[in-house]
Amino acid sequence: MSARTTLPNRPGEGADLARCSLNTATVKRATLPEAVDAAARAGFGAVGLWRDRVQETGVQRAASIVADAGLRVSSLCRGGFLTAADDAGIASALDDNRRAIEESATLGTHELVFVVGGLPASGVPGAGPRTDAGPGDRDLVAARGRVADRIADLVPFAADHGVRIVLEALHPIFAADRAVISTLGQALDLAAPFHPGTVGVVVDTYHVWWDPALREGIARAGAEGRLAGYQVCDWSLPLADDALLSRGHVGDGYVDFPTITRWVADAGYRGDVETEIFNQSIWDAPFDETVARVGEGYARLVLPSLDTRDDG
Amino acid sequence: MSARTTLPNRPGEGADLARCSLNTATVKRATLPEAVDAAARAGFGAVGLWRDRVQETGVQRAASIVADAGLRVSSLCRGGFLTAADDAGIASALDDNRRAIEESATLGTHELVFVVGGLPASGVPGAGPRTDAGPGDRDLVAARGRVADRIADLVPFAADHGVRIVLEALHPIFAADRAVISTLGQALDLAAPFHPGTVGVVVDTYHVWWDPALREGIARAGAEGRLAGYQVCDWSLPLADDALLSRGHVGDGYVDFPTITRWVADAGYRGDVETEIFNQSIWDAPFDETVARVGEGYARLVLPSLDTRDDG
Repeated sequence: MSARTTLPNRPGEGADLARCSLNTATVKRATLPEAVDAAARAGFGAVGLWRDRVQETGVQRAASIVADAGLRVSSLCRGGFLTAADDAGIASALDDNRRAIEESATLGTHELVFVVGGLPASGVPGAGPRTDAGPGDRDLVAARGRVADRIADLVPFAADHGVRIVLEALHPIFAADRAVISTLGQALDLAAPFHPGTVGVVVDTYHVWWDPALREGIARAGAEGRLAGYQVCDWSLPLADDALLSRGHVGDGYVDFPTITRWVADAGYRGDVETEIFNQSIWDAPFDETVARVGEGYARLVLPSLDTRDDG
Repeated sequence: MSARTTLPNRPGEGADLARCSLNTATVKRATLPEAVDAAARAGFGAVGLWRDRVQETGVQRAASIVADAGLRVSSLCRGGFLTAADDAGIASALDDNRRAIEESATLGTHELVFVVGGLPASGVPGAGPRTDAGPGDRDLVAARGRVADRIADLVPFAADHGVRIVLEALHPIFAADRAVISTLGQALDLAAPFHPGTVGVVVDTYHVWWDPALREGIARAGAEGRLAGYQVCDWSLPLADDALLSRGHVGDGYVDFPTITRWVADAGYRGDVETEIFNQSIWDAPFDETVARVGEGYARLVLPSLDTRDDG
């Protein structure tokens, strides 16, 4: 980890933002160079990248841009969408995920976040209610079984490339159309057969803040060496029309960040903390304003709890 | 249970609807007599009542209307909202819940469904984002502790009245503003210190269909003698603007009713199956049309799996 000093007159009022990472989805309109520049100027230590931004820049060039700015890539988003039941869908998913693994390796990030996909007939997120679904399409147990099978298919390729498949539990609001992994405990159960260096989990507060077993899940992830990432984002009400965009800056909603962050720190997590927010009004704001707000939320509600073990 | 014969030319095309119950929230515009009449004419065996409809009719008279129609009251909705942290809020919650327990006893239903409440500062559901919340307001762990305390306060009164406190896990989408119980397993953990005849749980498919531990939770509820109700309602997408109203008729969404119903039946549940749907377009439909559709969904996707143990 690079040495970073406290920087006055920056977001967070002099706080140490070395472990603060800007996920590029938070500044959706920014090109990769724009996002990296804004993060570096704000004193952040890392960026979390989405594949679309990386691909439009070129993977090699993206790696150089981040490195030249003195930043780390905290994670690449995303692989996944593994629930297809037909041969063509399975082959296509494996191909795409092998490319994502290669891109992670080129970018020099160990952590490739997987959103595993929803019920197969749900199709494109937001496509509306299904009218053609047979009973098999609602078989959540079978869809989860296929996710386990596809992870097993991909593990050797990921291990060969030094990349970790990082399973993300999504809020149950997305169980039908985006991810049949809904809890951290379930993600850990799916990861259990594999080496912790090859299959891990990420904790995203927006998705798991409500989970009564969250504390135990985070502790287990740490003990197993699988805690590969920590993403922060608040749960706001009322929900946006598109629930996917119904997220808020840290501190604007209902999530108890100091408590969850302490659990993450107590589990031994020492990596970057990504702020990843999908929200139209945040996307419409100037990049520097968003980045400043990200730094402020991190400094106020995350950083003090992240360091408890060092203080105690 | 009253003897009910198969009735041709009724919803479900001759299916036995003896265990099919109409929750009055599904026909929100109907008065209690109108809802009872529609359920009875459709051949249903029971109704699930909400307190507002019961109170506007009068509790004694409501009991007579249901009994005269030859129906059972499968449950009363609802008690709960137990998360207040201040003395006045606690006293008010206990008073209201004692009245609900008395109403249940008068109505002759053993099962009083509890929606336990959200984070205290969230206030009225749908009131929008909080602006005045202090850190304590986000303390989900403490809010859950208060729920446990209030249940303990109410148990002796419920036992004296022969009424069971039936804890309902709500979908995590409602964890902030309606219920800090988000999984069936959590509801069972809260119920565990008490006699199963006094504290039970209800399975509502809309709220728990996504839960990877659902099968185990249902089996545990049955083994412990706490499975006090089974409510059916589908998860539809896209979500309605008001997520609370984003529910569909059985068969219109993503829920795997045959599978979940089989788990419920295998757990030994032999009670009524309530259809409880909050949906503006269903509320706008003629009562008889809604009731017919409820009977059809029950007959097609619930009833065949409900009877597996008797067949096998």
